[in-house]
Amino acid sequence: MAQPVVKQIVLASRPKGLPAAANFRLEEVPMPKLPGGGLLLRVLYLSLDPYMRGRMDEAKSYAKPVDVGDVMEGESVCEVIASDRAGYAVGDTVLARTGWRTHAAWDGAALRKLDPKQAPITTGLGVLGMPGFTAYSGLYIIGKPKAGETVAVASASGPVGSLVGQLAKMAGARAVGIAGGPEKCRYVVEELRFDAAIDHRAPDFAEKLAAACPKGVDVYFENVGGAVWQAVLPLLNTYARVPVCGLIAQYNVSGQPAGPNLLPATMRAVLTKSLTLRGFINVEFAAEHYPAFLKTVSASIADGRIRYREDITDGLENAPTAFIGMLEGRNFGKALVRVARP
Amino acid sequence: MAQPVVKQIVLASRPKGLPAAANFRLEEVPMPKLPGGGLLLRVLYLSLDPYMRGRMDEAKSYAKPVDVGDVMEGESVCEVIASDRAGYAVGDTVLARTGWRTHAAWDGAALRKLDPKQAPITTGLGVLGMPGFTAYSGLYIIGKPKAGETVAVASASGPVGSLVGQLAKMAGARAVGIAGGPEKCRYVVEELRFDAAIDHRAPDFAEKLAAACPKGVDVYFENVGGAVWQAVLPLLNTYARVPVCGLIAQYNVSGQPAGPNLLPATMRAVLTKSLTLRGFINVEFAAEHYPAFLKTVSASIADGRIRYREDITDGLENAPTAFIGMLEGRNFGKALVRVARP
Repeated sequence: MAQPVVKQIVLASRPKGLPAAANFRLEEVPMPKLPGGGLLLRVLYLSLDPYMRGRMDEAKSYAKPVDVGDVMEGESVCEVIASDRAGYAVGDTVLARTGWRTHAAWDGAALRKLDPKQAPITTGLGVLGMPGFTAYSGLYIIGKPKAGETVAVASASGPVGSLVGQLAKMAGARAVGIAGGPEKCRYVVEELRFDAAIDHRAPDFAEKLAAACPKGVDVYFENVGGAVWQAVLPLLNTYARVPVCGLIAQYNVSGQPAGPNLLPATMRAVLTKSLTLRGFINVEFAAEHYPAFLKTVSASIADGRIRYREDITDGLENAPTAFIGMLEGRNFGKALVRVARP
Repeated sequence: MAQPVVKQIVLASRPKGLPAAANFRLEEVPMPKLPGGGLLLRVLYLSLDPYMRGRMDEAKSYAKPVDVGDVMEGESVCEVIASDRAGYAVGDTVLARTGWRTHAAWDGAALRKLDPKQAPITTGLGVLGMPGFTAYSGLYIIGKPKAGETVAVASASGPVGSLVGQLAKMAGARAVGIAGGPEKCRYVVEELRFDAAIDHRAPDFAEKLAAACPKGVDVYFENVGGAVWQAVLPLLNTYARVPVCGLIAQYNVSGQPAGPNLLPATMRAVLTKSLTLRGFINVEFAAEHYPAFLKTVSASIADGRIRYREDITDGLENAPTAFIGMLEGRNFGKALVRVARP
């Protein structure tokens, strides 16, 4: 009988600019043993997130990079297939940072259990997981939108942006989304009920964004950088807040970017408009705010005030292509890989 | 008998880059009459401050620009020479926004009175005035230095920077100053008792700054921008706070600055280090914090914990030259013009 194997995707080489398929390699390794006091996990869904691009570079981001030859990092929804740990039974569904693989041994800290009866398990990687809490904490703790203010967010059909706008609406603010292409823009307005959505690919994008924000922008939730930031900057009101949670537009830029130097204009705006720019990673706020987030957002999904969308790719071997597509904005909704059928 | 005249300095033309003498014009106008319910003021000391450079440009900064032909804006210490207002007697010393002139009619709101017995009246324009409160509010309300942290500030021998460092020391933090030239650096360490002072003109400035901040920088009080910001950026610790109160290095830059584009690197640092950049103008905090500021800083001057230095130029006609010199960093201490002898 053939030995059971684990499939995993490792970083084959560091990308220059946008990653290519050749930067990844599919490997097979022997199935690990159940660790004493631990769990053996079968990965059902792998989450694909923009932050993973940073881990592929050598430079330290907010976490140490993945070494060449190591398994790509990532969070997944898993089924417990063997347990030597009290409180976890075979068949339980858990969230774990397994990385890009089909199975994993887990001897680490406690894992969050998911109740498949309460919400679809994939939401633990999206609207009820890290992306959802990123939106919630950045918007409510840093952005602090007030009723009547205007909140703008890019990647508005994605897992973070979509929740930012819907939470902004719940706070009584005007929500203006930025998305790539008419289909996503339609979804943002019709399904997610933002007040407006602007296609950043339109040649008159900046003018349209300004027209959609007649009273300026009080909170800009920054997850892209680049040209969108340049369009938002002149619209920011005095005392505007800018939670900075991602800069996907510049993740694939290598080397020193050519001029003009846009830093002085941004700093001038920070000064003259008394802006707050605040970078953050959701874990900073988790201990204090995660329970309230889960409660608020679960309830709002249940009563229909919050909607979400997933973009699922089948098969671990297709994760690199799906990941590259996400960096280019080709996903439509939270990017997931179905590694195994539950 | 000759009619008494008022001398005043008006904006003759808008500067391109560093202002020149030709951008200013000395005028004589008739002495105003005492306004009903108001005061007639004789200016004793005029304050010269970096923000005035912004007022000379056409673009709106945080206040509207001075129109060509109008008197340059500014705050001064004045003697009341005629009064039709209860509570103000001839001979009183007051602070007023008279602009660059020898005399002014004042029919406006209440003025802050200075008690020459309590502190030298010039301090009302410096350590006990707007620059002092800028340092106090930016450092304590935005920067929030904790004991053992490192606070860095440029223009460390100037009215804002010198107080930032001394207030940082009072909070138990390490104070690292940046100043132009060995004489100012010596003053910052020996007189102001900063822990270190680095000459930004030194060819190995960035290396020396790094060496002076062995535990990184937790609060960088930004008042210059430019090359100093580039040297500070890699030293900033996670969760560092950057009150942005001025950008004197870029005030005289006209047109779009040449590359490389330094914005992506700054935004990346904001993101990966969870930085807070917060622009501010001191008046935002005045209602709530000015009384505490006056109390704390007055007491600390009295007991010798806070020291200050003034750079006084004689004669209103020399104000433009002194102002240009200040923008180039040639002043040593708070820049003032003695318009008349008290």
